[in-house]
This record gives sequence, C-alpha cells and structure tokens, in this order.
Amino acid sequence: MANKFVPVSGREMPRFSGIKTFFRMPHVEPVSDYDVGIVGVPFDGGSSYRTGQRFGPLGVREVSSLGRVFHWGRMQSFTEKIRVADIGDIPIVPVDLAKSYQRIEDFYDKVLSGSSRRLIAVGGDHSVTLPMLRAVRKSVGKPVRVIHFDAHMDTYPAAWDCEYHHGSFLRHAVEEGLVNAAGSLQIGLRGPLAGRDDLDFIQKHGLRVAQVDDIRRGAGVSDFIKTLPDFGDDPTYITFDVDCLDPAYAPGTGTPVPGGLTTYETQQILRALRVKRLVGADVVEVLPAYDSSEITQLAAMDTLFEILGLMVGSTR
Amino acid sequence: MANKFVPVSGREMPRFSGIKTFFRMPHVEPVSDYDVGIVGVPFDGGSSYRTGQRFGPLGVREVSSLGRVFHWGRMQSFTEKIRVADIGDIPIVPVDLAKSYQRIEDFYDKVLSGSSRRLIAVGGDHSVTLPMLRAVRKSVGKPVRVIHFDAHMDTYPAAWDCEYHHGSFLRHAVEEGLVNAAGSLQIGLRGPLAGRDDLDFIQKHGLRVAQVDDIRRGAGVSDFIKTLPDFGDDPTYITFDVDCLDPAYAPGTGTPVPGGLTTYETQQILRALRVKRLVGADVVEVLPAYDSSEITQLAAMDTLFEILGLMVGSTR
Amino acid sequence: MANKFVPVSGREMPRFSGIKTFFRMPHVEPVSDYDVGIVGVPFDGGSSYRTGQRFGPLGVREVSSLGRVFHWGRMQSFTEKIRVADIGDIPIVPVDLAKSYQRIEDFYDKVLSGSSRRLIAVGGDHSVTLPMLRAVRKSVGKPVRVIHFDAHMDTYPAAWDCEYHHGSFLRHAVEEGLVNAAGSLQIGLRGPLAGRDDLDFIQKHGLRVAQVDDIRRGAGVSDFIKTLPDFGDDPTYITFDVDCLDPAYAPGTGTPVPGGLTTYETQQILRALRVKRLVGADVVEVLPAYDSSEITQLAAMDTLFEILGLMVGSTR
Amino acid sequence: MANKFVPVSGREMPRFSGIKTFFRMPHVEPVSDYDVGIVGVPFDGGSSYRTGQRFGPLGVREVSSLGRVFHWGRMQSFTEKIRVADIGDIPIVPVDLAKSYQRIEDFYDKVLSGSSRRLIAVGGDHSVTLPMLRAVRKSVGKPVRVIHFDAHMDTYPAAWDCEYHHGSFLRHAVEEGLVNAAGSLQIGLRGPLAGRDDLDFIQKHGLRVAQVDDIRRGAGVSDFIKTLPDFGDDPTYITFDVDCLDPAYAPGTGTPVPGGLTTYETQQILRALRVKRLVGADVVEVLPAYDSSEITQLAAMDTLFEILGLMVGSTR
Amino acid sequence: MANKFVPVSGREMPRFSGIKTFFRMPHVEPVSDYDVGIVGVPFDGGSSYRTGQRFGPLGVREVSSLGRVFHWGRMQSFTEKIRVADIGDIPIVPVDLAKSYQRIEDFYDKVLSGSSRRLIAVGGDHSVTLPMLRAVRKSVGKPVRVIHFDAHMDTYPAAWDCEYHHGSFLRHAVEEGLVNAAGSLQIGLRGPLAGRDDLDFIQKHGLRVAQVDDIRRGAGVSDFIKTLPDFGDDPTYITFDVDCLDPAYAPGTGTPVPGGLTTYETQQILRALRVKRLVGADVVEVLPAYDSSEITQLAAMDTLFEILGLMVGSTR
Amino acid sequence: MANKFVPVSGREMPRFSGIKTFFRMPHVEPVSDYDVGIVGVPFDGGSSYRTGQRFGPLGVREVSSLGRVFHWGRMQSFTEKIRVADIGDIPIVPVDLAKSYQRIEDFYDKVLSGSSRRLIAVGGDHSVTLPMLRAVRKSVGKPVRVIHFDAHMDTYPAAWDCEYHHGSFLRHAVEEGLVNAAGSLQIGLRGPLAGRDDLDFIQKHGLRVAQVDDIRRGAGVSDFIKTLPDFGDDPTYITFDVDCLDPAYAPGTGTPVPGGLTTYETQQILRALRVKRLVGADVVEVLPAYDSSEITQLAAMDTLFEILGLMVGSTR
Repeated sequence: MANKFVPVSGREMPRFSGIKTFFRMPHVEPVSDYDVGIVGVPFDGGSSYRTGQRFGPLGVREVSSLGRVFHWGRMQSFTEKIRVADIGDIPIVPVDLAKSYQRIEDFYDKVLSGSSRRLIAVGGDHSVTLPMLRAVRKSVGKPVRVIHFDAHMDTYPAAWDCEYHHGSFLRHAVEEGLVNAAGSLQIGLRGPLAGRDDLDFIQKHGLRVAQVDDIRRGAGVSDFIKTLPDFGDDPTYITFDVDCLDPAYAPGTGTPVPGGLTTYETQQILRALRVKRLVGADVVEVLPAYDSSEITQLAAMDTLFEILGLMVGSTR
Repeated sequence: MANKFVPVSGREMPRFSGIKTFFRMPHVEPVSDYDVGIVGVPFDGGSSYRTGQRFGPLGVREVSSLGRVFHWGRMQSFTEKIRVADIGDIPIVPVDLAKSYQRIEDFYDKVLSGSSRRLIAVGGDHSVTLPMLRAVRKSVGKPVRVIHFDAHMDTYPAAWDCEYHHGSFLRHAVEEGLVNAAGSLQIGLRGPLAGRDDLDFIQKHGLRVAQVDDIRRGAGVSDFIKTLPDFGDDPTYITFDVDCLDPAYAPGTGTPVPGGLTTYETQQILRALRVKRLVGADVVEVLPAYDSSEITQLAAMDTLFEILGLMVGSTR
Repeated sequence: MANKFVPVSGREMPRFSGIKTFFRMPHVEPVSDYDVGIVGVPFDGGSSYRTGQRFGPLGVREVSSLGRVFHWGRMQSFTEKIRVADIGDIPIVPVDLAKSYQRIEDFYDKVLSGSSRRLIAVGGDHSVTLPMLRAVRKSVGKPVRVIHFDAHMDTYPAAWDCEYHHGSFLRHAVEEGLVNAAGSLQIGLRGPLAGRDDLDFIQKHGLRVAQVDDIRRGAGVSDFIKTLPDFGDDPTYITFDVDCLDPAYAPGTGTPVPGGLTTYETQQILRALRVKRLVGADVVEVLPAYDSSEITQLAAMDTLFEILGLMVGSTR
Repeated sequence: MANKFVPVSGREMPRFSGIKTFFRMPHVEPVSDYDVGIVGVPFDGGSSYRTGQRFGPLGVREVSSLGRVFHWGRMQSFTEKIRVADIGDIPIVPVDLAKSYQRIEDFYDKVLSGSSRRLIAVGGDHSVTLPMLRAVRKSVGKPVRVIHFDAHMDTYPAAWDCEYHHGSFLRHAVEEGLVNAAGSLQIGLRGPLAGRDDLDFIQKHGLRVAQVDDIRRGAGVSDFIKTLPDFGDDPTYITFDVDCLDPAYAPGTGTPVPGGLTTYETQQILRALRVKRLVGADVVEVLPAYDSSEITQLAAMDTLFEILGLMVGSTR
Repeated sequence: MANKFVPVSGREMPRFSGIKTFFRMPHVEPVSDYDVGIVGVPFDGGSSYRTGQRFGPLGVREVSSLGRVFHWGRMQSFTEKIRVADIGDIPIVPVDLAKSYQRIEDFYDKVLSGSSRRLIAVGGDHSVTLPMLRAVRKSVGKPVRVIHFDAHMDTYPAAWDCEYHHGSFLRHAVEEGLVNAAGSLQIGLRGPLAGRDDLDFIQKHGLRVAQVDDIRRGAGVSDFIKTLPDFGDDPTYITFDVDCLDPAYAPGTGTPVPGGLTTYETQQILRALRVKRLVGADVVEVLPAYDSSEITQLAAMDTLFEILGLMVGSTR
Repeated sequence: MANKFVPVSGREMPRFSGIKTFFRMPHVEPVSDYDVGIVGVPFDGGSSYRTGQRFGPLGVREVSSLGRVFHWGRMQSFTEKIRVADIGDIPIVPVDLAKSYQRIEDFYDKVLSGSSRRLIAVGGDHSVTLPMLRAVRKSVGKPVRVIHFDAHMDTYPAAWDCEYHHGSFLRHAVEEGLVNAAGSLQIGLRGPLAGRDDLDFIQKHGLRVAQVDDIRRGAGVSDFIKTLPDFGDDPTYITFDVDCLDPAYAPGTGTPVPGGLTTYETQQILRALRVKRLVGADVVEVLPAYDSSEITQLAAMDTLFEILGLMVGSTR
C-alpha cells in the first residue's frame, strides 16, 4: 500500500491550513490508481425549494479539516485497507439538467469501466443520484439494492411538467431498472405528504420503509438495527440525503422536515449494515448557505467517514 | 366541500413563489365562511427578555411554503374534512398592551360569536393567550381545559409592578375563571426557577405538570403518552409555546431553556391527545430574528399541522 | 382614481403585520384594471455562481413593509397618479430555463397585449430579463433603449456550451433586435474581466458604458448626471442588477464585485433620468440567503420606489 | 482629577476580557462624584417595526472594549479634562411605555438636580428621548436647541391611537416647550415619506433640515460643515439616531433607510459643531439582533467618543 | 449569610439590562469574602482549529441574564447555602501560552491559599485547565479525581513540536501527578481518532471512559447514571468541555464532533454525581463567534448552574 | 510563457466547483518555477482582540472563484506577463509566536534565495509581516520602503510584557533596520488612539502618514493620488491590513475602526502607485468568522488582484 494515501497530519500542518481536499487526502486524477474516489457533484438545478447545494462539495471539503481516519468502533483506520483520494468535481452545467446528467454519467462511466474503483459522491441536490445509478448499474451488470436515507420518498411525480427533479430520482431509478426495489430500504421517511397518492409508488414496488417512528420503537435505534436486512453479496448502493436528519442536526439543506433522525442514530445504522458489495454511495443536499456553524457539513463529513468504514469491509 | 380550501400546489406553482399565506391556503375575511381560521397575532409588548415575536406570523407564513396537508399517521389530509383559511393578522397596538388585549378580544368575539368557527393563533409572545382565552371562554360558556406546552409555568407574579406580561397569562386565566385548572396539563416544564415560591400557584390550583423528566422516564415519550388524560367532551384549548422545545430545536424564541423536548416528542404527544372539543389553539413565542436556518419556524409550522390534525377529529 | 390602490397604512395596521405584498399595495389579478403591476419572477436557473435569487420576490415583499409612497424630491406620492398593484409571481419552472423563458414571455404577452399596463419585475437572476424584453419589444413595436445598471456587461459568450445564462441576456437582446444598442447605456460596470475579448461586443455594438470611475470623476455623481442622455420619446427599459452596488451596500447578490456604487449614487442617477416612455423595468439578482440584515432587499425596494417615481412621469 | 476615571488599559488587561462597561470606564453610582455619566436606557416599547433596541446598551458596552480615549483631531484625551463614568442602566418597565417614561424622567431628575453632572444616554428606541428632554429642560430652565441626527423627522402624528412612540418624540418635545424648534437642526433626513402631511410640522415650527442631499452638495461634507450654525451659549442637546447612517454602515437598527450618511460624514459634522453648552446627548436605535459583525455598535461607540470630545469643550 | 450574594431580580431590573456578571451575582475582588467564585479565563492560545474562546466568559456572562438560582430537582436555591460571586477575569497574555499559564496558576494560588474558597472557571480553550489543576493540586495536597466531559481524550501528544495545547491538558495533568488517573472518569468521548495510538495513554493509565455509546445503552442515560462511581471524600474536579455535547446543542465550540450528548443527558449525569469534595470546576471551549442564537452559551450557563448545585452539597 | 499558469476557466468548470486555489491558479511547490507565488500564512497568535485570522487564506481562496485576471484600467491580464501560482500555506505553529516567526522566515528564505521569485502573503494577523520583512530585507540587501495600508500605526509598544504582537510589527521592522522609515507611507490611519504617546514613534522616525482626512480633502482620492511619492527603483513592499477599510466594507477583521476607506479608494490608490521594484506584498487581518456575506474576503481578493497588476509592471 503506497503511503501516499494518508491524510496530511494535523500535528504537522495545522488543520486550519492548506488547500482543502476531502479528509485532507491527496487530490488525484479521476482515472488513476486508487480504490475509492470521493468526487464532488456540485449541481443544484433539480431543487424545488431552497437552492445552493452546488456549494456542498466546497463545504464538506472545508470541514474535512476536522476529519480523522481511525474508527473507534471498528478499531481500524480506513487508510490501512483502502486507497482513498479526492478526485475533484465533475464539471457540470449549472443551467441545464439534461446536460449535467450526461456529464455525470459519462464521468462515472469513464472512472468505473474496466476498473475496480468505487466512487462516493458529495452533492449537489438529490437529482444527481439518477445518472450515477445509471452508470453504476452498467458497471455492475444488474440492478442494485439501495439503502436510501431521506425524509422524503423521492418517488414523486413530474412537477411543472418536468420528469426530472430532486424529488423523483428513485422513481426513475426503479422504472429504468437500475434499482432492485423490493430489496431496497428507505430510512428516516416522515410526513407530512402532499396527498395519499404519494404512497402509491412505494406500495406498488414493494419498497421497504423505515419511518422515524419505526426506528424509535421500543429501545429505539438499538432495537431497530436488529431488524436490518443482510445485503449479503448483492450489489448495494447507499444514498444519504442529509434531510433524513432533523433540522436541528442538519439545518443546511434544501427541504428540511421536523421530527427527523439524530446523527447518533444514523451512525448506529450505518455501523450495523451488513453489506459485502458496496458498489457506490453518495451524500447529498448539503446546502452551506443555510447551514449554521457548519453542523450540517460536519454531519455529512461524518457520514462519509462511516461509509468509508463500510467500504473497507466490502468490494465492488 | 368547496375546493377553494386547498393549498396552492407546489407542483404547479413552485413552493418558493407567490404571496405567502399559512399553508398556502386562501386568504379570506375573518368573518366569512370557513371552519378553522389561522390568524397572526404579532404582539410582543409582553416580553421580558428577547423581543421581536411580532415577526412570528411572517416567519411562519414564509416556511408554510414547505407545508403539506396529508398526515401519514392519520392517513388523512386535513383539507378533506375542514375548510382552513388564513384570515390575516389582528391589528394590534405595538406600544400598548392593554389596547392590544382589547383588540385581540374584540377580534375573537367577532369571529367566534354566532358561528362554529375555530381559531388557531400564531404569536406573538405568550401574553396574547390571555385575551384569546377570555373570548373563547365566552364563546363556549364555561372554563376550558388547557393543554399547555412550555418550558415555564407562566403563573408568575407581577413584574415591574405590572400584572400582565408573557409570564403570567395562565395565572390570570385561572384567576379570571377562564381555565379549569385541575383539568389542565402543563407539558415540558423545567427549571431553574427564580425561587421556591414559583411553585405555589400550580400547587394551590392543582395544575398537573409533566416535566421533561416525567416525559423521559422509562421508554420515554412512548410511555408518557399512555399516561395522558382523556379530555373527552370538555372544551379544550392547546397553547404551544415553542420554548417547550430544546434550544437546539427552537433557538428562535424569547426565553430559551436548555434540556427541553424534541420536535419528535411534541409530535408524539400531539398525535396521542384525545380531545373531542378542541375549541381553539395557539403557537406562540416564535422569534425569527433569533432563529437559525428557520428551524424554529419550521417546528411551529409542523405543530400547526399536528393541531390541524386534531381539529379534524373534533368540534367546537 | 379608485382609492383601492393605496397601501395599507402603517399607522393603522403596524408595518410588521399582515400578508406581505409589494409596498403593501393590493394583490390583484395579472389581467385586471391597474396601471403598473409589480410581478415576482423567482427564477435562478441561469446563475453561474451563488444561487437562490428565487427568493428575491419574497425578500423584497417582506421589506416592502417599510416602503412609503411620497417622494420628497418629486414632492409627490406615486399613488396620486398611477394605480400600482402586486400581481403575484410568474409560475416559472425551477429546473428548466427554456420552459421558464416561455412562461415569462407568455405571461408578459398576456398582460401587455391590448392594454396600457406596464410591468416592473422583481427577479430572479438576470437571465429573466431576456424573455421580458422579447415581450416588451412586441408590445411597443420596436427595439427599446435600455438603461442597464450592473457590475457586469452581461454580453458574455456561451458558457458550458449554453447560450442562455445570467451573463448573456444583453448579448441576446441586442442580437435578437430587442434592444437599440447604440441608444442604450450601461451604468456601474467595473472590472476585473475574464479577458480582453469581453469588451468586443460592446465596442462592436456601440454600447455606451459608464464605469464607476466615470461616475466618480470631478464632483462625482452630481457631475455625472449632467452627462446623461435624454431618452425623450423613445421606448426605454430600465434593468437594475443590484450588483451595480458595492458589496457593502448589496451583499445579498449572486456575483458581487468590490468597488461599486452606493445607493445614494443610484438614487441620484434614477432621479435625473429623462424618460418619457418608460415601458418597463426590472430589479434583479436579489439573493436573500446571502443578504445581511436585509440591506440588499431594502436597496431593491428603494430602487423600485425610484422607478415608480419615473413611471409617474411617463407612459408606455 | 482623580485617576480613577481612566479606562482599564488594553495593554495590561486584554480588551476582550473583564466585565464590560462603557469605554472600560469605572461603574459608579448614578448619584456620585463624576462629570459625565453614560447611562443605558434599554427600552424598546415605542418601536413601530423591528424591535430589540433593549439590547442596545449591552451591545455598545461590549464593543466599548475597542474604545480608546485620545482624539487625534483634537489632540486630547477626554480623560484629561472630564471624569466620565458608566452609571449603569435605568430600570425601565418593558411592558409599559408610560411607566418607563416616568422612571426615566425620575432618574434624570435625581441625577441632574443640584449638580453639574451631564448625561449621555445609550438607547433604546427613540421614544426614550422625550422623558430625558423633559428632565433636561427642567435642569437648564429653558428650552434647548436640539441637534437631531436621524433618517426620519420624528414629528409624526399618533399611530394606532397612541400619541407616544419612537416616531413622535420631537413633536411632543416641541409642543411641550422642551425644545427651541427654530434653533434646532435635523441632519440626515431623507425620504420616502408616508405623505405630504409629514412635512407640515417642521414647516410650521421652522425646524431647519439638512437632508442627505444638502450634505453632499458641492464638495460634500467639507462644504456642509461650513454652513453649520454656531450654537454659542445656548443649551444644546444632541440626539443621534443611528439610522441617520446608511444601512451599509448601520444595519442594526429599527427602521433603516437606504441613501444615508457614512460614519465619516457624521464624524466630520460632530467635530465641526460649535457648542459651548452641551447639556446632554443620546445615541439611540442600536439593535444588536440585526447588526452584522457589530458594525452598528461600533458606529454608536464611535459617536459616543465624538460626543465626549464635545463634552470636553463645553459645560452644562 | 449576607444577603449581598443574591442575583439582581429580573422582576425589578429587567433581565436584558444592567452590567453583566455571571448569574447577575455581585462582582467582588478575587481575594475577598465569598464561598464560590466564578472566574473568566479568556485564553485561546492553545486552540488547534477554530479559535475565539477568549470571548467565552463574555458570552456566558451575557446569557447569565437568563440564569435563575432555584433547582427544581434539588428543591433548593444555591444562594441559600453558598455565597457565589463573579470575581472577574484572569488577566492572561493572549500571545504567550507559557506566560498565561503562569498568570492563571498565580491567580489560583493567591485565591485558594489560606482559604476555603472554591473556583469555577469559564474558558477559554481547554489548555487552561492544566495550570488550574496545578494550583488546585497544591491547595488540596494530593492528586484529584477528575470528571472530564469531552468529545476528545485530551491526552494527545505534542503537536508542531509543542507539548502544551488544548488537546494535551489531561496527559500533562496525569504525568505531573495532579490527577488520580485511575479514579477519574471521561464522559462523552467518541471517535473518529487520528490513529490507534491515541488510545495508548488512557489504557496505560487506566482512565475510565464512558463513550456516548456506553451512555445510551439500554434505557439510556437513566441506566448509565446508575453505573457512576461514588467519588466520596476524594477531592474531585469537574472539567466540562462543551464539545461533549452534540454540535446541534453546542455549535459554538472549537472542535465539534457529531454524535454527541444532549444537554438533557449532561444535566442528568451532573445531577446524579455523588461528590463530597468538589474542589473546583471549569466549563471550557465556549466560542461565541461560532454559536448560533447563543445556544452553546446557554448550555454552558446551565452547566454552571448544575455545578453550583453540586457545590452546595460539597466542600473543598 | 508556459500556459500552465492560467486560471481554470469559469466557462468550462463552473466557478463554484473544484478544489480552491488563489485565483484558480495552479498549486505548485514553493521552490519551483514561477514568478509570483501567493502563499497563505494562517497565524493569528498575535491578535489582541478578535481572533480567527488563521482562516483568512481559506476564506480568500474560496472567493477566488470569482477572481478574474484582466485589468480594465491597465488593459492587461496579469497572466500574460507573469507566472502566478498558489504555493500553499506556510506550516505555522498555532500555539507559539516565536516558532511561527521562525518558520515563516525560513520559508521565505528558502523561496527567495537564489531566485527572482516574489511572494504575496495572505494572512493571518498583522504580526506575520515582521518575519516576512526580515527575509525580504535579506533578499534585497537593504531596507525596503513600505506602503502600509491600515487603520492603526502598528508601532505600538509591548503589551502584556510581550514585544511581539499584531500591533507592533512596524516598530520592530524599523528598529531592526528592515524598513526605510522616512521613505515609507502609511495610508488610512485614523483615531482614536490610546494616548498621545502613540504618535511618538512615527514622529521620531519621520513616517509619512495619510490619514483618512488627508485622503478625502478637496476632490478626495483623485486629488490625493496626485500627492503620492514615486517609489522609483527603491525596493518597496506593500502591506495591506484590511482594517484600513471601513467596517462597512471590511467587517471581517480583528480590530475594526469606523470612518475608514472604501474599496474604491484603495483601488484608486493602488492603481496610482509608481513602483518599479515591488519586492513583496501581503494582505492581512482577514477574519472570515466575522465576515458578512464574504465581503471582506472579496475585498481582500480584489486587493490581491490590484497588487498583481503592480507586480506585472515591476521586478524584484
């Protein structure tokens, strides 16, 4: 293992200094030699309410200065097992969703094809997950199981006569055959909804839903994690919308919903996941302009850290 | 049911656009044909510390853009059962508490008399609840049971030689015979107090108090809600001071107190209430100038949504 | 003159209360009987850097509470001469620039055709001016002279292979024959630029440019206003990008540039304009999420007030 | 001169430390031995729009940590000539304007009677100036000339059927014979106004007005200060509403108006005043909750410093 | 008991007014007659990331306006049993850590020697605890048991070739024999860590650690507090780094870590402590410039209140 | 000229995306082939009041996304003439001023020796200029003339028994023979001062001072720039403390002083400088935690741009 893939030490170069990369890891070319690439996808042209998620990658890179690599629960540094790198941002088109989708998919295709590389994206609004799933689906050859953290179902219909927006990525992903709906799991959903119809899609496709209430039954999250399915050898993808968290924990997001999860709960769930093939992941809807004291950015960074822990014990 | 009383659809007119009303519902005249009116009461002349609750109605109208109408727990849209409207703000007198009290009471009298209308007020500081209870008491003909969410008892004595301020509304309401003290319930109280005497009033009048500790005993709120009384056919009024919530969940308020409830807990309690005659309600002490990323305003809006759910299953 | 078109009085209904409309004027239907309509155009899908101008109309409506109608310099209330109304927001499509352009143009066509109505738009990013000019051009039957307040030329080339964005509206407006380039005037421009080529378009088309330096020569703005052309009977359109102001005066905007104008200077210039046919106007690039203490929103509202003063003395 | 009346040195006790007093001067009893007392008047019950000026004295005390005592223009430390002290806050009644007026007047009476002490008040909203003028009038035995810095005339009529509010102090002061209207001067006024009638009072009473335009004619403030009257031996009072400043310089205030003065301009004017009997002064309408980076508080503190410079060269 | 040691009453002097001291208690000389002194230690020269903790004492004094003295759980006002005073700030040297250490230790020595006084310090960054422990160790004559609330172990090695910084105070305290490591307890720790080595020190010295996970096992904090040791007659010191709290509860701190405690949990733990000799305490790492709506400052003030409750039932 | 030294184009990679470097220029090794290196010096251990200037380089890199390279006044892109690069941050020691000084000087020595490279530093507090001048003095072989933009003289005496802090850099630089005092110029100074003695040093050493008053005499800055000396062939260094600007233009700084310069004025002065040997420069005291909407960071970035314009026409 080349020792290039270790973070700049905070005890040598103070954490507030230097050019910011994810986890202070090296910045390398997208098509180069590493195991897991963290990539920014600064697109927010799919947002229906607050916007500015384009600054999400910047915000997460900044607080990455506080990032560390050793997981106390797993008793392991991710740097000991995998070569993690910052591969920069995908050059999206801020004024055109379709072109941005194409650029995202092309970028993913180029990085994933003929390689064992895996990618973790930092959004951007949730609309960016669709083109990434298109590429991931191609690279793994079959639909993936999705572990979807969110306050919303994201299976909503067209809005303003537009099929594609940040509330419909999962509907399209299922309809395009990118996702194994029945094998997937939604975590953190909660109302209110616009109407009863909002539930039709998940019922029709058999999506398993863990509402906040479900997670807090009995002894709470420690009970809930016992009910998590084993994803075994199935290719699995994690998409983490920070609005699964309560606005107290993630104010800096596009469509916050009261009554959400705590960072502790999402940590516990992520640590409990049994996934042998984690083929990709993303953390989306970080909106720094609405953040307060960077707490949403910190939560996103911490989630990346947990995902890296899962990456260690899995392959593509 | 006239279909006029549905919100502007976010899938046609984006949620960030348009003139803001509570829940994007129609703005109608106070004395007109509807079931439940939401009214702003932008008075903060009773505040003892931070002030600016006059902007509370504005703040809640703004975030109402994110409001939705279908309750996942109740499996029902409130718009299917009741005609809800924004009836504007009461024209209070910012520099005179007594005159404002009179205007509020007059407004309520006019709206409630000879009608089955019900009102939900958005404050304003907590002093506004007193004139509203005066009018509600008249309209229902007997003292009401109050479900009082708060960090404070609000039964405090005169301050600066003034009887009326935002910490004494309940004392006056009890002493004026507006409230059935023994049938009422205070939720979310916590210390510290100014002195032992602060407890005298609630002991004398037999007010039932659920401190935060009481709510978190055992399995927490799921145990607590089993202990809630049935309010049955008694006329009942809900007054929700957002400072019942912890400052992490409701920073934008006048007199925050650490160690408070979460929005999840207040949701659970509101959903568990058995009230057949919910004769009125208010959500007070929203102070946008101290809010962070609108989370307090969102919590207030969400509380309104839960109260609307209770309105559906009850009458005046 | 119907006395309907006067603002809600702040001495009766306090300025912090009530449902917010531009200048507290009545909210009326777009196609109805009034002289000047103020309309929100909450589109920000053309932004190249910070985004969130979709909340501009909301932000300006809010501070409109402080708006007043009597112009001390002109010794006249605009309400004495013209009927001004808030006609709501145009229902744009947040995720699609082309569709939004169509909706804006259609809306303008509908309001302007067969009528003497005039519109003042509140943006939104600067890309929205193009479809409005398309409609205005049709309604007046010839190219308009534009008075363009901005830090930028907005004649920039395509970016990311996209012709339309908030930095190219004027280039397209000139190329489409909507604007009389030689008769137009740009005010407040300043560097730095991306390159020398940025100047080609204005040189080719003979656009007159008043850089900040030009405005501050000699005795400053009082000298500069003597050099302003007389727009006489030519149909003239004012587009005011708040980034013509210095970031100290307008922090809440998409692409701020140090070394800009003060609100006093833009007031002086607006008051000095000689325009007999002011056929329309807009104030754009207000971005509340980056504003500080609402000063940008206040500056935008004040600019609307000056434009209303110009509307009084002119016709379409 | 007792050396007690010098500030805590920033080179011994760092400026960020210690218990905060105005200019780090000693905190003494109101009725004790000093020359000029700075007193907080934390009342905001007269506010018509934003409120929270009650935290003004706190905010100014905080930034007083950066205060210094030597005036480069005057080549003099105010501590060399006068004994300046922080005499605490007047215990006002937040929920009652009339009672607060009485407490303010009583406090002033007690401090001023039988003494040569002078007071500089830190507001609070502008309504507090009226009771202070009542007491000052008594102490000097005749009407005072007022130098009134403001964006507004503050001669407005009753609002909401209330005579007393923060926009009417000067009208009452003139009508009660506290102020020599014809000998007074208003600085920084600007429109818009609610209507033409707003001008009636100042015309009737012959108040001299220097609008922002008047101050910026020709070479600007350096010309303007040549036109200032000599206040000679007449008892003179300075009331400085921070909203005379532009919102860019004083965002943290109740009713900001674009197009205002700069701190440089008010410094120049204050330095140019010829006043032999400066019998009192106040700085009002500082509203920390709306301030940004404390710049309004700093401007207020700096204005206090200039007023102290004037106090040095004058007597009561 | 002299009644001098009671707070200024909020019902006489409104809480927003007056010169700010901790809990509105009297400001007295450090060497004078009182039982428990609260002292500011505004040093942040040991910070490794965000800095500005020098304003911590100011921030806590400000929100102390909301402080009250009666503990509902203990049914007791601390003012009934102990004389508590604000003794000002220690005059530290902002640019020199070693000199500041000396000044802190000297100050403590002077206050503690030949007296039964006890001190509660308000930081400042966590590096200030070391010189305070040096003095406390001397005053009690043996190593103290430390109850250490923190997200971090603070037993980290030298950084940038410097032994002393805010992450190493406990290592030095143990190595210098100031602390009884085996009798101490760390509460709230959580990962991630920089590396496995970070755990060596606590393992070697037998420090007992309660990670957040340990506190939330089973029924959560109500179970955890049953496992707390009895500190009996051993001299015990509480050091409370506000970053033990989750960033949602304490955003205003230097090195926030997601997944932390709630204020409710720390209240429960503090209330359950059995300590007969509480010889000193501190609350550190409050960083107002990063706070949001003062919630961190409020949490710190509330923690002081709980510590005062413990002081009542204990001696030095 | 290698075309490597051009910024990432905003029309290809949107300005909000990518890893942030100064002006989006390439990040290269400190000792490598370029003409002008921009280097971060994130040290704030010399601050006497607000602190956090350690985040200055980060803040300026962020807003550098809006940076452009063509100077409209000079009609030239700096990239056409000089190779500019971001060379990262100097690894300072946050807890030790002396060690940081050594690291800064060593870094500068290494970069400057045996090379024609020039450096522009981005602070950090103003104390960092001293070690940089030590190295620059060595590299040019004689004292340099300093053009010093500041609100303060920075020739202050020791504080808290410490010689070195952010208010004494110039005193030491003169006393150590690094600076040609009589050939230097201070711009933007203004009171108040701590005392008359503060003026002794500049009088003794004949430092030329342009107070704000001096700059605004007559026609203002356009007159002032005619009085600027010609620095000719003398080695000259520019140190720009952003607090020379008024707090309205630069709120995000350590010790703001009302009555300061505007960004327009500093632009005009920088453009008018005649300097043939600009041997180095710095922009210091940017404090993002106190900035509002990034306006201070933008002003700093713009100043860097003007300095780069001066670098083009000069050599070391």
